[in-house]
Amino acid sequence: MTTAALAHIVAGRGRFAADLADFVRFASVGADPRRRGDVVACARWLADRLRRAGLQDAALARTAGHPVVHASWRGVAGAPTVLIYGHYDVQPAEPLHAWRTPPFAPALDGDNLVGRGACDDKGPVLCHVAAIHSHLATSGRLPANVLCVFEGEEEHGSPHLPAFLKAHRRRLAHDVAIVSDTRMRGPGWPAIVEGTRGAVSFEIELSRPGAELHAGQFGGAVANPLEALCAMLAQLHDARGRISVPGLYDRVRPIAVAERARIARVAPGTAELLGDAAAATAGEAGFSAFERTSLRPALVVTAVDGGYGGPGALTAIPARARARLNLRLVPDQDPAEARRLVCARLRALAPAQLRLAVRAGPASAATTIDRSHPALAAAARALREAFGREPAFLRSGGSIPIIDTLRDLFGAPVVLMGFALPTDGMHAPNERVNLPTLERGTVACARFLELVGARGARPELTS
Amino acid sequence: MTTAALAHIVAGRGRFAADLADFVRFASVGADPRRRGDVVACARWLADRLRRAGLQDAALARTAGHPVVHASWRGVAGAPTVLIYGHYDVQPAEPLHAWRTPPFAPALDGDNLVGRGACDDKGPVLCHVAAIHSHLATSGRLPANVLCVFEGEEEHGSPHLPAFLKAHRRRLAHDVAIVSDTRMRGPGWPAIVEGTRGAVSFEIELSRPGAELHAGQFGGAVANPLEALCAMLAQLHDARGRISVPGLYDRVRPIAVAERARIARVAPGTAELLGDAAAATAGEAGFSAFERTSLRPALVVTAVDGGYGGPGALTAIPARARARLNLRLVPDQDPAEARRLVCARLRALAPAQLRLAVRAGPASAATTIDRSHPALAAAARALREAFGREPAFLRSGGSIPIIDTLRDLFGAPVVLMGFALPTDGMHAPNERVNLPTLERGTVACARFLELVGARGARPELTS
Repeated sequence: MTTAALAHIVAGRGRFAADLADFVRFASVGADPRRRGDVVACARWLADRLRRAGLQDAALARTAGHPVVHASWRGVAGAPTVLIYGHYDVQPAEPLHAWRTPPFAPALDGDNLVGRGACDDKGPVLCHVAAIHSHLATSGRLPANVLCVFEGEEEHGSPHLPAFLKAHRRRLAHDVAIVSDTRMRGPGWPAIVEGTRGAVSFEIELSRPGAELHAGQFGGAVANPLEALCAMLAQLHDARGRISVPGLYDRVRPIAVAERARIARVAPGTAELLGDAAAATAGEAGFSAFERTSLRPALVVTAVDGGYGGPGALTAIPARARARLNLRLVPDQDPAEARRLVCARLRALAPAQLRLAVRAGPASAATTIDRSHPALAAAARALREAFGREPAFLRSGGSIPIIDTLRDLFGAPVVLMGFALPTDGMHAPNERVNLPTLERGTVACARFLELVGARGARPELTS
Repeated sequence: MTTAALAHIVAGRGRFAADLADFVRFASVGADPRRRGDVVACARWLADRLRRAGLQDAALARTAGHPVVHASWRGVAGAPTVLIYGHYDVQPAEPLHAWRTPPFAPALDGDNLVGRGACDDKGPVLCHVAAIHSHLATSGRLPANVLCVFEGEEEHGSPHLPAFLKAHRRRLAHDVAIVSDTRMRGPGWPAIVEGTRGAVSFEIELSRPGAELHAGQFGGAVANPLEALCAMLAQLHDARGRISVPGLYDRVRPIAVAERARIARVAPGTAELLGDAAAATAGEAGFSAFERTSLRPALVVTAVDGGYGGPGALTAIPARARARLNLRLVPDQDPAEARRLVCARLRALAPAQLRLAVRAGPASAATTIDRSHPALAAAARALREAFGREPAFLRSGGSIPIIDTLRDLFGAPVVLMGFALPTDGMHAPNERVNLPTLERGTVACARFLELVGARGARPELTS
């Protein structure tokens, strides 16, 4: 890449860290209605940062949910167009007591910046912004045409982004999409994600008639929705660690022998993958930890809430209990069907005396990226040059709900090139991001635009 | 009873309701450390109310926990002494959203006063205070010697009251104890409780190494303490509704045929006992609802708390999960043994990979009151005169932890004569108390003192 653009990135190190701290300071928990103000303020900040980078048309687009921050640069007629997708919303920071520093008061810990959203996805979004900035500031132009689309609802399934993309389908046409919301293979070892799991979340409530009841005066004579809910949840996995939902595995593709061998060679082992949690390894018999998290479905009980667990002992029989489930899907599973099967299983497990309500969120399918596409080669080269190491091609267990919609609407390849480290604690307390890694990531983003732009005509890229 | 005392009670109707509202306004949740200030302020208010009733020595006694409010009147040498026990602490008010009016902003709803603690136990405590007041205000004396002991920790097992009673054993010697912390048989139908269940509460935490983990990136490969906890809790009852804790039923007395017949005659049926919740009747096969709640042990999961159930979907695998259990014990069960058996069962159920911590609270035994004691006859007559109906003699499923200690230390009978209605919602949202019922209760308390005093010499009472 141009020496001037590279120098701009390196010289901007301090500015980058300060920008990221500003970005993380917004408690942009998109799924929490109480955070609406923080989310919008965060979107405004991001649009302003894009304008500072030189994208003067950066603006907020209203949706039925949180605004989409968008910007564009179309300076090279005939050159390919890159759509950069990312998200400025973050996961809730709970459990708050587990944070060593407050989640929305970014702190430096050696080379890491700690705070909710630091690696998911604010740091990587800023890599793209800084890469654009480096080109525009040093040469007044970008090597390719660029569209930025940063949403505020990724963490709860991107409910309103499809409508936005459809409404602006012509204006958002592109030759390749790039997303930096995945993990590296390890420190200094980049990765290109060649597929993600799909996801769907469920909220369950089980209730009985009447209010809470004195546990002494009524204990032993009334169905307890909390106990019944626990019994239901306990029946969602069998003794061999398989999900006990009839039909759920019907479409799951067996892992090919060659693929299994490649995974064993390239993927992290149990200890590397799970860190401290490796002591509590569990899951489906007959599969490695990496296979379990990438090529096999998973059903996780993410929350149960019933009765009163706070200070003071309330001895009452609860009248209702709630749980949340998160299902991850693998290739060939149909999200709508999987959602239906889980709902049917829950209904079959619920005691007749109690009232069951199940609410399922938006469902996304697993994705698989075609490794042979030239855009992947460009990404691999950009990463190799930036990090000095050949990237690993690996599936991810995570989900990026919008990928499928992007491909369906625009027909362009989606490149998943992320900069979070496996130990960065995505969705966990003390989430952090490694600043030197983000600097290399910024270089990779800048170089990717050059490589895509250099390929010239679109047909080559979309071949 | 004297016409003047009766007139004083009736004329004081408005004052009584205002006093009760003041009393309920204190958020005296004894088990919540954040409420320490409210608890102490409530104790001070109660001591002041006792002084207004004429017991000039009313004062607070320090304990290792919350203060004991005590007062005495010893004006009749040689007359029997009645110890009145009650509590000014209340249960936590959760779930707060289920209250139609704020729990600590007492509201009138027809003849009922609504608020946390209204019937458990502030209203009934005030009945005794008003009864004392009526005698002292109209005749300058009480018909019997009286000791008041009102504690602030009943709802979490009276951890510090035994030490207080032991330390003041001589000063607190009495011929009969009376406790108004139980329910009536129904509206207008008084009851004398002839036995209570024992109780012990447990707090369980199950955890794994490492922090919360991204449910996508790690889902399927790590033991989930929340799912494991649900599976443990689901194994605490068998298919016939019995508690699955080996040895727990070994000492449980079968219900005698005659007793069963008497229960069927006197006790409320399922619909009357459970109200709206009757549609969700459940429990041990072979026993009626009333038997299940009074003569059979019960194990209730009162709370489960794991992951994040608040606004915003946190898709993480929890690192820990907590539960609370409440065990109720019946005659002949040994509380320490039962506690040990439950702990052993929990340890046996916990997966080896996870860390289990169990904390058991103070344990109290079931109690049985000797119905043939003359003090019971006095209580029955007082109730009959006040309510115009013969009281029912019934066991209660609830627990009053201190009863056993009182009997062991002082050897006097304990009379359980309460004024809460079954529909008053003890431990539930919208707890209330019926003011006309409390007025009759006050008359019964005043009359009880007369009847005990009239019996004269102690031997008669303790025969």
